[in-house]
Amino acid sequence: MTGEAVDTVRVALGERGYDILIGPGLLERVGEEIAARLPKVRAAVVTDENVAARHLSTMTAGLENSGIAATPIVLAPGEKTKSFAALQEVVDKVLAARLERGDAVIALGGGVIGDLAGFAAGIIRRGMNFVQVPTSLLAQVDSSVGGKTGINTAHGKNLVGVFQQPRLVLADVNVLDTLPEREFRAGYAEVAKYGLIDRPDFFAFLEKNWRAVFSGGSERTYAIAESCRAKADVVARDEFETGDRALLNLGHTFGHALEAATAYDGSRLVHGEGVAVGMALAHRFSARMNLCSPDDAQRVEAHLAAVGLPWRISDIPGELPGAEGMLDYIAQDKKVKRGALTFILTRGIGQSFIARDVPASEVLAFLREQLEG
Amino acid sequence: MTGEAVDTVRVALGERGYDILIGPGLLERVGEEIAARLPKVRAAVVTDENVAARHLSTMTAGLENSGIAATPIVLAPGEKTKSFAALQEVVDKVLAARLERGDAVIALGGGVIGDLAGFAAGIIRRGMNFVQVPTSLLAQVDSSVGGKTGINTAHGKNLVGVFQQPRLVLADVNVLDTLPEREFRAGYAEVAKYGLIDRPDFFAFLEKNWRAVFSGGSERTYAIAESCRAKADVVARDEFETGDRALLNLGHTFGHALEAATAYDGSRLVHGEGVAVGMALAHRFSARMNLCSPDDAQRVEAHLAAVGLPWRISDIPGELPGAEGMLDYIAQDKKVKRGALTFILTRGIGQSFIARDVPASEVLAFLREQLEG
Repeated sequence: MTGEAVDTVRVALGERGYDILIGPGLLERVGEEIAARLPKVRAAVVTDENVAARHLSTMTAGLENSGIAATPIVLAPGEKTKSFAALQEVVDKVLAARLERGDAVIALGGGVIGDLAGFAAGIIRRGMNFVQVPTSLLAQVDSSVGGKTGINTAHGKNLVGVFQQPRLVLADVNVLDTLPEREFRAGYAEVAKYGLIDRPDFFAFLEKNWRAVFSGGSERTYAIAESCRAKADVVARDEFETGDRALLNLGHTFGHALEAATAYDGSRLVHGEGVAVGMALAHRFSARMNLCSPDDAQRVEAHLAAVGLPWRISDIPGELPGAEGMLDYIAQDKKVKRGALTFILTRGIGQSFIARDVPASEVLAFLREQLEG
Repeated sequence: MTGEAVDTVRVALGERGYDILIGPGLLERVGEEIAARLPKVRAAVVTDENVAARHLSTMTAGLENSGIAATPIVLAPGEKTKSFAALQEVVDKVLAARLERGDAVIALGGGVIGDLAGFAAGIIRRGMNFVQVPTSLLAQVDSSVGGKTGINTAHGKNLVGVFQQPRLVLADVNVLDTLPEREFRAGYAEVAKYGLIDRPDFFAFLEKNWRAVFSGGSERTYAIAESCRAKADVVARDEFETGDRALLNLGHTFGHALEAATAYDGSRLVHGEGVAVGMALAHRFSARMNLCSPDDAQRVEAHLAAVGLPWRISDIPGELPGAEGMLDYIAQDKKVKRGALTFILTRGIGQSFIARDVPASEVLAFLREQLEG
């Protein structure tokens, strides 16, 4: 444990409010932090094989030291685990362990594990306690904040799930040291996103300090905490995504369509990379619609390129459908409302807004330019 | 349509509040009532083969007249439909119909259909609109009020689900004329329950007027509306079952154990019959604990016997486990909290209360008496 401070971000949701702790060495402290908030709790730890090999014994030791009996539930790694079959497996194992409504499901892993375990916690006995211990950058700054959980179906990603707020989130910044660089970089796309939504100063900080964020230390803790604060602010305004929360989808409408178009094949495109390309496209499309300056779009593209993220459709390896096919993927995206296309567009760096009724013809023309360009 | 008035019960849950309409001829009016509340909605109608044969065309005609396109999803009848497999089937079909978050899932059927369709509505796109059109007495007075949804697993009944409040409930009292008498009678057990919880005058009304409730007309509409009011009052006080709502489980702890012990075999015992026996046992156990008078227990037994409901364990056909086995079923029931046994007991007719930490030894001794007596 270093001398660095642990930062605490409060997600202000009334009686569903909770703390996000961000800092080094938190994995060892999971037991005591949970015991302080949920006395006499028993737990199931949902994780995947890769994360279990690295971190499970550290965590269960900490849980045991705090008197918390824990049943491990270890799943196959990867996006395919966000399925009805895996959901049913987790539900059955938690019930077989006779956990009660006041006990806890702990998610130890990245976004896949968090989304699946949170969904299970939300439906077992109509809602158990849920604790997130995110081990990827993406999960620390995005999926573990805000209570959205879910699985994928043949009809699309995250179309099935619940809102289930955690009781506590523990983001240990040191576990990110063991992440593959590509995965860290993909998560960084969501960090940059918070700057682009409504924090221009944070985006400028990232342009200047991204190397320090990548290498660790206090800049990394700051960037993660600032990202959590940004997301927590939006979530507190709109817990159930009926309004402002849609801003968090900056880059996601194009991004989800690209993920679907690559059949969620992580060797071609992972979620954060899709968001990176999606954010660049959202800015370029905004510039094309004369909503923002082409210089802003260029600045976003330059930063994504500098950190090594894809930002053009042509950066994605392999075949992609044509413009019409991409538009179909966009239309099936869950944010479609009454058949109209909704996008997050922008008036400049940190000036994003929800654009409803975007003409499909404009999107199609833009996609044609991008795919032929 | 007769000249009888439609009664409206408001479930006061703030922005999740909704109306329950009770009266004759409502099935034909489903379209206009939904259109008045959810303009431009599209719908999926979840139902079972038996109910579809009787009522589906009436309802879809009414929906079409109000401009609501509806996709029917017809499932096998019976408790086995409350499964992960059927849940996944409904979810897939609703998504295949490209329904959006603002569209509606309509449950047309009894408790099984309502619980399953409500669960699906609660998880598709993290929550769609949900409308209940209950066609059994049990569903009209119990399962369609209060937002509890769920499915069964090998570990027990209703252990998996969500709280998903409907936007509207339409209880057509005329559809009950086509119910088998045994099913109507089983639903009546839940009507009597509301009197026994906290409405002694209503119980006295039922003792005097149960024949008129069974034969239809204004007494039936009144009994159903009064039951919905009783349940709505409790639900408004405790939406998520952290306190008072447990009162609604009067008769259910014994009842669920009996259902589990008969392997949910409806030829032996249906839910309402389990509740009837459970209520009689809860009163007899309360008398044994000197909480209420034996006369009160006898009065409950006499009324259940008068309407033709089972009230003794020996009224259930076939083999049952011994007292120890029954206690195991009770311990796995979802209302177990931290290992202690919680029962709804009573100080007299309409004076039920939540008894926590009931000694398992007392329950065991009581069960031995009942099973040997």
